[in-house]
Amino acid sequence: MTGSDPIRSRDSGRLRLLHATVIPEWVDYNGHMSEPYYVLVFGNASDAFYDHIGMDDATRRATATSIYTVEAHINYLHEAKEGERLLVETQLLKHDSKRIHLYHAMLREDDERLLATTELMLLHVDKKSLKVSPFLPHAAARLAEVAAAQAGLSPPRDVGRSIGL
Amino acid sequence: MTGSDPIRSRDSGRLRLLHATVIPEWVDYNGHMSEPYYVLVFGNASDAFYDHIGMDDATRRATATSIYTVEAHINYLHEAKEGERLLVETQLLKHDSKRIHLYHAMLREDDERLLATTELMLLHVDKKSLKVSPFLPHAAARLAEVAAAQAGLSPPRDVGRSIGL
Repeated sequence: MTGSDPIRSRDSGRLRLLHATVIPEWVDYNGHMSEPYYVLVFGNASDAFYDHIGMDDATRRATATSIYTVEAHINYLHEAKEGERLLVETQLLKHDSKRIHLYHAMLREDDERLLATTELMLLHVDKKSLKVSPFLPHAAARLAEVAAAQAGLSPPRDVGRSIGL
Repeated sequence: MTGSDPIRSRDSGRLRLLHATVIPEWVDYNGHMSEPYYVLVFGNASDAFYDHIGMDDATRRATATSIYTVEAHINYLHEAKEGERLLVETQLLKHDSKRIHLYHAMLREDDERLLATTELMLLHVDKKSLKVSPFLPHAAARLAEVAAAQAGLSPPRDVGRSIGL
């Protein structure tokens, strides 16, 4: 960790909820992490964020609710190698009563080099009706707290991109 | 297959280079395919497209070239379930001497229901210099052939999207 380095400050204001190590099952014959496993790590970071707002797996099962990813945009910037430690920084970009626009940045833990970014559109779903539904009150309150805590953050790189030549 | 159904015509003009079956390792506790494995299937479809343009793995190794995904946009539309057969339709949206803008649509093979779409930005790389480099002449010729064959196709759904509330 290089918390004293202003460029790689630990005080980014983003949440750091997930650490991971690149395991052999995730790498190709070159020893580089394959694309699906970037998405797997980002998905684990989303799960950690759900825990953070009180929507852990047990709560989702008990309340017959879930949170679905409907759209994702990923920028692959640098390769992750077998054995490397990763960390994910998370920023809540925006939310309303039923939806979350979430951002994750994947860093190499050793030197905090940025490896990949993703933005996600997430919907809260009532699994009984299979319809998009308002967040449970405690989760809505937690989302508001995170939004307030991160209100001063700049929009991160790569947000709002569309793909084209 | 329902080739006689005009809405689900097999004559979409897109390439059908990949079929897959949803295996137990790809599903969550609900029996639904997890997000990383949509990306895995789309990645296999990209590999099949590379084969199609003469850039199969053996050629890439022999010429010290590769094709890197630098950006991806995914729309998750419907769940895929364990045991279901999938097929992927591929459309070359645009390309230049070094880059490919590629589109895949993932369908359930049984009724050709659309499950997910992705668009990708792909770069041809010289692995000796680690720089973006022009496609090999035979691959450039194949890309031009595919582009000509698909010139009449409409832009597919979800292309050019950006994420936001």
